Amino acid sequence: MAVGKSVIRLDSKEKVTGRALYVEDIYMTGMLYAKVFRSPVAHGIIKNLDISEALKIKGVKGIFTAKDIPGKNIIHVILDDQPFLAKEKVMYPGHPIAVVAAITPEACEKALKTIKVEIEELPAIIDFEQSKNNSVKLFENNNVFCSFKIRKGDFDKKYDSNDYVTVEETFYTQHQEHAYIEPQGAIVYWEDDTLTIRGSMQAPFYVQRAVSEVLNLQYSRVRVIQQTTGGAFGGKEDVPSLVCAQAAICAYHLRVPVRIVYDREEDMQTMSKRHPSRVKIKLTADKTGKFVHVYGDYLENAGAYSTLTPAVLYRGTVHLPGPYKIDNIYVDAEAVATNTVPNGAYRGFGSPQVIFAMESAVDMLAEKLGMDPVEIRGKNLVDYGDTNSTGQILNDSVGMKEVYNKVVEKADYFNWKKQIEEFNSKSEYIKKGLGVSTLYYGVGLGAAGKSMSRCASMVKIDADGSVTASVGVTEMGQGLRTVTAQMVAEFLGIDIDKVVVSQIDTSRISDTGPTVASRGTITAGWGVLSALAKIKKSLHKFLEKKYNTSFEDVYFKDGKVKFGNNELEYSELIKMATDEKIHLHETGLHVPPDTTFDKETGLGDAYYAYAWAMNILETEVNKLTGEVTLKKAVCGHDVGKAINPREVAGQIMGGSLQGLGYGLMEDMQVSSKGKIITSNFSTYTIPTSCDIPEFIPVIVESNYSKGPYGAKGFGEQPLMGMAPALTNSIYNAVGARVKQIPATPERVQESMKNIDF
Amino acid sequence: MAVGKSVIRLDSKEKVTGRALYVEDIYMTGMLYAKVFRSPVAHGIIKNLDISEALKIKGVKGIFTAKDIPGKNIIHVILDDQPFLAKEKVMYPGHPIAVVAAITPEACEKALKTIKVEIEELPAIIDFEQSKNNSVKLFENNNVFCSFKIRKGDFDKKYDSNDYVTVEETFYTQHQEHAYIEPQGAIVYWEDDTLTIRGSMQAPFYVQRAVSEVLNLQYSRVRVIQQTTGGAFGGKEDVPSLVCAQAAICAYHLRVPVRIVYDREEDMQTMSKRHPSRVKIKLTADKTGKFVHVYGDYLENAGAYSTLTPAVLYRGTVHLPGPYKIDNIYVDAEAVATNTVPNGAYRGFGSPQVIFAMESAVDMLAEKLGMDPVEIRGKNLVDYGDTNSTGQILNDSVGMKEVYNKVVEKADYFNWKKQIEEFNSKSEYIKKGLGVSTLYYGVGLGAAGKSMSRCASMVKIDADGSVTASVGVTEMGQGLRTVTAQMVAEFLGIDIDKVVVSQIDTSRISDTGPTVASRGTITAGWGVLSALAKIKKSLHKFLEKKYNTSFEDVYFKDGKVKFGNNELEYSELIKMATDEKIHLHETGLHVPPDTTFDKETGLGDAYYAYAWAMNILETEVNKLTGEVTLKKAVCGHDVGKAINPREVAGQIMGGSLQGLGYGLMEDMQVSSKGKIITSNFSTYTIPTSCDIPEFIPVIVESNYSKGPYGAKGFGEQPLMGMAPALTNSIYNAVGARVKQIPATPERVQESMKNIDF
Repeated sequence: MAVGKSVIRLDSKEKVTGRALYVEDIYMTGMLYAKVFRSPVAHGIIKNLDISEALKIKGVKGIFTAKDIPGKNIIHVILDDQPFLAKEKVMYPGHPIAVVAAITPEACEKALKTIKVEIEELPAIIDFEQSKNNSVKLFENNNVFCSFKIRKGDFDKKYDSNDYVTVEETFYTQHQEHAYIEPQGAIVYWEDDTLTIRGSMQAPFYVQRAVSEVLNLQYSRVRVIQQTTGGAFGGKEDVPSLVCAQAAICAYHLRVPVRIVYDREEDMQTMSKRHPSRVKIKLTADKTGKFVHVYGDYLENAGAYSTLTPAVLYRGTVHLPGPYKIDNIYVDAEAVATNTVPNGAYRGFGSPQVIFAMESAVDMLAEKLGMDPVEIRGKNLVDYGDTNSTGQILNDSVGMKEVYNKVVEKADYFNWKKQIEEFNSKSEYIKKGLGVSTLYYGVGLGAAGKSMSRCASMVKIDADGSVTASVGVTEMGQGLRTVTAQMVAEFLGIDIDKVVVSQIDTSRISDTGPTVASRGTITAGWGVLSALAKIKKSLHKFLEKKYNTSFEDVYFKDGKVKFGNNELEYSELIKMATDEKIHLHETGLHVPPDTTFDKETGLGDAYYAYAWAMNILETEVNKLTGEVTLKKAVCGHDVGKAINPREVAGQIMGGSLQGLGYGLMEDMQVSSKGKIITSNFSTYTIPTSCDIPEFIPVIVESNYSKGPYGAKGFGEQPLMGMAPALTNSIYNAVGARVKQIPATPERVQESMKNIDF
Repeated sequence: MAVGKSVIRLDSKEKVTGRALYVEDIYMTGMLYAKVFRSPVAHGIIKNLDISEALKIKGVKGIFTAKDIPGKNIIHVILDDQPFLAKEKVMYPGHPIAVVAAITPEACEKALKTIKVEIEELPAIIDFEQSKNNSVKLFENNNVFCSFKIRKGDFDKKYDSNDYVTVEETFYTQHQEHAYIEPQGAIVYWEDDTLTIRGSMQAPFYVQRAVSEVLNLQYSRVRVIQQTTGGAFGGKEDVPSLVCAQAAICAYHLRVPVRIVYDREEDMQTMSKRHPSRVKIKLTADKTGKFVHVYGDYLENAGAYSTLTPAVLYRGTVHLPGPYKIDNIYVDAEAVATNTVPNGAYRGFGSPQVIFAMESAVDMLAEKLGMDPVEIRGKNLVDYGDTNSTGQILNDSVGMKEVYNKVVEKADYFNWKKQIEEFNSKSEYIKKGLGVSTLYYGVGLGAAGKSMSRCASMVKIDADGSVTASVGVTEMGQGLRTVTAQMVAEFLGIDIDKVVVSQIDTSRISDTGPTVASRGTITAGWGVLSALAKIKKSLHKFLEKKYNTSFEDVYFKDGKVKFGNNELEYSELIKMATDEKIHLHETGLHVPPDTTFDKETGLGDAYYAYAWAMNILETEVNKLTGEVTLKKAVCGHDVGKAINPREVAGQIMGGSLQGLGYGLMEDMQVSSKGKIITSNFSTYTIPTSCDIPEFIPVIVESNYSKGPYGAKGFGEQPLMGMAPALTNSIYNAVGARVKQIPATPERVQESMKNIDF
C-alpha cells in the first residue's frame, strides 16, 4: 500500500543536500544577465525614453523596450489589460519599461542607472476605497475590474423584529507577501530552434501562452520547463509569465541564453500580493442562534492591472458566507484599480479576507446571543444534503460535522476553556484566549476557471518495471511529486522507489491548467490513473492472448499481478510484455466534473468538491504591550483521503502558520506614492520558528467518491481561517476586537482603548 | 505537400550560427571535469593500482576504479564481455582503468600522470589472422567471438568443368575512423533525484540500460537526453554507453555535475572503428556470364571485446553475395579477438568490406569473360520475385533494375567509356578509368537485432495547432528531425513550421532501439503515424459528435480539414477540440514487419526491406606516382520514397565521399604493440573539399508498400560501394588490381609492378 502511507517527500533529500537545481544554479556558456528598468512613479505618461547611452556601456548586449516586441504587448492572464512593457503609460511604481541584457549583473545595474526616462506624472489612486468613480480613470468601467454577487433565497428580507439578532461590522485586510524562499527567476535559451524557458513557476502553460503571444511564436516553439521551485503560494501563478517574458525577449533577439533572477527587494516591490480588502458583514440569527441571513460587501484592491482578480474575487464571493446553512444571502463583490502593484493569487485566493470578516462576525453574534463560539458554529454548520452559499447541494464528501466533532474532542475544548479561565483569573497582565474558526474551501478551479480544468498525464513503464510519470501540475514544495508517485505505485502495486515523477515540461504534457486552487493532488491523480488504466488494459489483453483465455480483471498488489487463478511477479510481467513489444507508454486526459455559475444570482455548482476545516487557537496577550504569543492550535481538515498523512500534517502546520503571520504580523506598508516600503524581511516580518505554536493537526477523511483514492485537495485551507481564529482569541483574551489585520501590538492596544483594565 | 519537398534541414540554421548546444557548450555550476586513466599496454595483468598520491592533488575530487562500481562491471552491448573499468586484466592499449574527476582539466591531467599502475605484460595478439586457435586466449571460444554462415542451394557443388569461369581472390580492408566532427562527450548530473545524462549519441536507450546496470539504478532513474550530436556514423552507437558511464560514476558518487569530453587523440585511439577484415571470394559464372555460385570467407578483426560484432558480422554475411541472382551460396564468417581497440558500428556495418571484395571479384570475372563490368552486372541483378542471398523472396520495393537503368542512362555510360578511352589514348602517364559497383542494403535491424525493432513516438497538438513530435530515433546530422517534421506536416496537411521535433529523452519516449541500420526515417515515420492515427480518430469522433452525424473519413490538406461536405480550417478545428477538452496528445508504437534467420543455413527473411544502389566512378591515376584523383561519380539509390530529395542527395554525396575516403586514403596504422599511431587528422587523412569529385546523385523511388509514405531508408548505402568502384576504376585506368584498401599511391604503384608501361 503506497496510498495513505507517510512517505518522506521525494524531493526533500536533494533540497536538503543542496543538489536541487534552482534557476540560479544554472549557468550556461555565453549566458547574459537580465534586469528590468522600471517606472519610478505610480502614474504617468512616458514622454521620452533614451537608452542610447546605456547601450554604450561595456558588457551591455541589448536593451529592449515595447518597440522590440514582435508579438502582442500583453501579458495574457484573464482580461488582457496588462502590457508586457509600458509604452505610453506607467501605472504603478516599478512598472516594467525596458529589459537590459548584459554580460554581468553589474553592467545591467549600470545600464539601469543610465537609461533616461521622462515621465509626466499624473494624479494617482492609492487608496482603493477612493477608486470607484474617481475622476482619475485607470480602467474603463469606472475603475471596477469586475464584480460578482450572490442572491440566494429571500435575500432582501429585513430582520428588524426582536426575534432576530444582528451584527454589522466592517473589516480591513492588508497586502500579504508570498515570501517564497526563492525569488522569481528564469533562464531562457534556444535549443533545437525552440525557445526554452526554465523557470520557477506554478503554471508552465500560462508562461507558454504568454511568451508565445509576446514573441509571436507558435506554442510548440516555446518550451517551458518548471525548474525546481522554491515556494510559490500563488505568487508564481501568473507572475512568472511576466518574468519569463523579460528574459525571453532578450534571448529571442540576442539568441544567447539569458538569465533573470530578481533580488528580494525587486521581488517584494513589484510582484503580486494578496488583495487588500474591505469587507462589510451584516449577519443575522434568530434567538436560538440559527443564522438566517448574511449580507456581505467585499471590496478588493486589485492594483494597477486585473491579472487574476476576476477569479480571486469569484472565490471570495462564493466563500464569504462560510460553511453554514444560511437560506438567505446577499453578497456584492467588486475589485477596483489603484496605482499600486497588481495583486494576484495567494493561498486562499480571495477567501481569507472574507473568512476573517465572517468568522469575526460569527463570534460577535455568539457573544450577543450569549453563546459559546463553538456552540454557535455547531448549530449552523452544513451537513450532507444541505446547500452551500451558491445553492449547490452538498452530497459528496461533506466532512464539516466530522471535522467539528473531532476537533472539539481532540482539543477537549470545554476543559481547555476552563483551564484558560483559571489561568486568566490568576494572571493580571498576561491573558489567554481561545479563538475559533470554521470554514470550507471549494476545491479546484471552480466555475470561473473551468475552461482550464483538465488533468493530463503521461506514464511510461520501462523494461525493468520502473515507471516515469509526468503530470501537468507542478511541485513547488507542497509534495505533489510524492503523492503522484504514491498513487502510481498504489495502482501498480509496486514500491514507490520504482516511480519517477518527471519535471513538468510543456513539450511532453498537454495543457493541464495551473497548479493552484488546491487541485494538485486530485489533478495529478486523475491524470495518472487515466493513463494507467490504458496500460492496464494493454497488459490485460496481452495476458489473455498469452494464456489464451479471458480474465475478468487484472490485479496489481505487493509486486504481484493476479489474474484468474494465475499470479506473476510484476517485474516478470513487464519484462514479458516489453519483450513482446506491448506498448507501456500512454498519455491520459481526465476532465473533472462540471461546475456552473449564474452571473445574475451567483448560484450554481461552484466547485466540484469542498474541503472543510475548523481551527481552535490559544494565544496569550500582553495587556500592557498588546503583544500576542501563539500558544497552541488544533487544526482539523477534511481532505477526502490523506494520500500522505505526514504531508497533510505538514501542509496544516505550514499553512496555518502562514495564516497566523497574515493575521498577526505581516504588515506591508505602501507609501502615499504607492510604493511598497516594507520590501525585505527586516521590515516585513513573517513568522519564524520562534513564533510557531504547538500544532495539533486533525485529519478527517470523508471519501470523495469521484476523487483519486477518495482524495480531494485542501492545500490552501490551512491558511484561510487562522486570522479570525487569532483575532477571536485576542478578543477572548482581552476583549479587544481587531477589525483590521495584522493584529500588531499597536492595533491590539488601540482596540483595547475602551476596555477598562 | 510536405513529403517529397526539398525542405532545408531544420537544424541547419542553429548549427551554422553556432547556437546549437553541444555537450561542451554546457557548463553547470559546480561542474567537474572527468578524464580516463588507461592501460599503456595491449595485454596484461594489473598487479597494483595506487591512486593515493593522485587523490591528494589540488582540485581532484575523486578517482573511481572498478572497486567503486555499485552495479555490474559490464558495459552491456550484446555478449556482455566488456568490463566498464579494467579490474584484473587489461586487454588493449587505452583500456580504461580509472576515472578522475577534478575541478579543472589540468588537475585531471596531473592526476592521470600521478596514478601508479603496475601491469605484468602478457603476450598480445595484434594480427587478427593469427588470432583463432592462438595459444594466447582472449575469448573462451578459441578467440572467436561469433560466426555466421549461409548455405543456400547447391552450395557445395564444384564447378571444375570448362562450362564455368571462376575467379578466386583474397581482399583486405583496414580500420576506418568515424571522424565525426564532435568527439565523444557527455555531461551527467542529478536532477529531481534522477541521474540525467546529456551526451553526444545515437542510442540513448543503450546508454540508459548500460548506465543503469553499472550504477545499479532503475531505468527510470537514469534519464538520457541526446544532446546536439556532431556526427556519429556508427561511432556513437555503443561507445557512448562507456563514455557516459565514465562521467556517470563520478556524478553518482560526488553528486555534482560532471562533464567528460574526449580530445581527438584520445577519441581516435580508444573509440570503436570499422572492423578490419580479410575476405576470400570465389565467384563462378557460366560462359554467358550468369553467376552460378559464390563462396565467401569473411574474417573480421573485432578487437579486444565483441561489442556490436555479432550484429556487424551478421550484416556482412548477408550482404556478401551482393544484389545478384545466385542460386548457390556458401559463406562462412567469423569475428576474432585481438588486443586492439574494440571495433563496432560504422556506416555500412560489416558490409563495405565484403562489397569491396565481391564487387572486385565481379569485375575480375567480367574481364575473364570479356564482358563489360556494367553488362555483367545487368545480367545478374535481382528483380521482383527473385530471392536474395538468404533465400528471401523480394516482392516489395525492388528497385535494383530501375537504379541500374537510370544510372547507366544518366551516366551515358557507353559514351563516357568511349571518351575515357579516347583520353587515355592521348595521355601517357595520366590515365582515366571507370569503376562500377552495384549493391543492396537490408534496411533496419534485421533478424539479428529484431528484438530491438520498435518505433515509438509521442505527438502533441497545442491549442494553436502547432505540434510537438517526439520519436525514439536521434538526429545526428542526417536530417532525421526534418523528415519527421515533414511526415507529421504531411499527415496533418499543415506547414512544416508548425511542427517541432523534440530532443530525444528516455523519460518521454519508450525504447525504440538504436538509431542505426538506416532505420531513422522509417522508424520515425512509423512512430509518428501511429500516434497521429489515434489523434485523427479522436478528432473524427469529435466532429461526428459535433455535427451529430457520421463521416467516412476526415481529410487533412493544405491547412484545411474536410469531412463529408464540410470543411474547416485546421487551426479552427484544433481550437474547437481543445476548448472541448479533446485529447490531442498520444503516444504511438509500431512494430515493424518480422524478420527471420536460421542459424544453421543463414536463410530467412533477413530484413524487412532492401535499398538498392549502383555507382559509376571516374578517376584519374598517375602511373608514375600511383596518385588517384576523383573526377566524377554517378550514384544511384532506390530509397522507396525521398521524403526530402535534397537531403537524399546530400546523403548520397556525403556517404559516397566517406566511402571514397575509405577506399582511397584513410589509412589507420596500428603499431606492433597494438596502439593506434595515426591518432589525429594530420596522420589519418580523410577527404576534404579538395578531394570531392563531381557527384551526380540519382534518386529512385520504388514505393515500399509498408513504409511511411513509401519510404524505406538508405543512409548507409552511399558509402558501401565506393571502395570497389574506386579500385575497379583504378584497374580500368592502369590495370592495377588493388586488393587491399586504402588504395594509397604506394599500393597502387605496388599493384602496377607487374604491369608493363
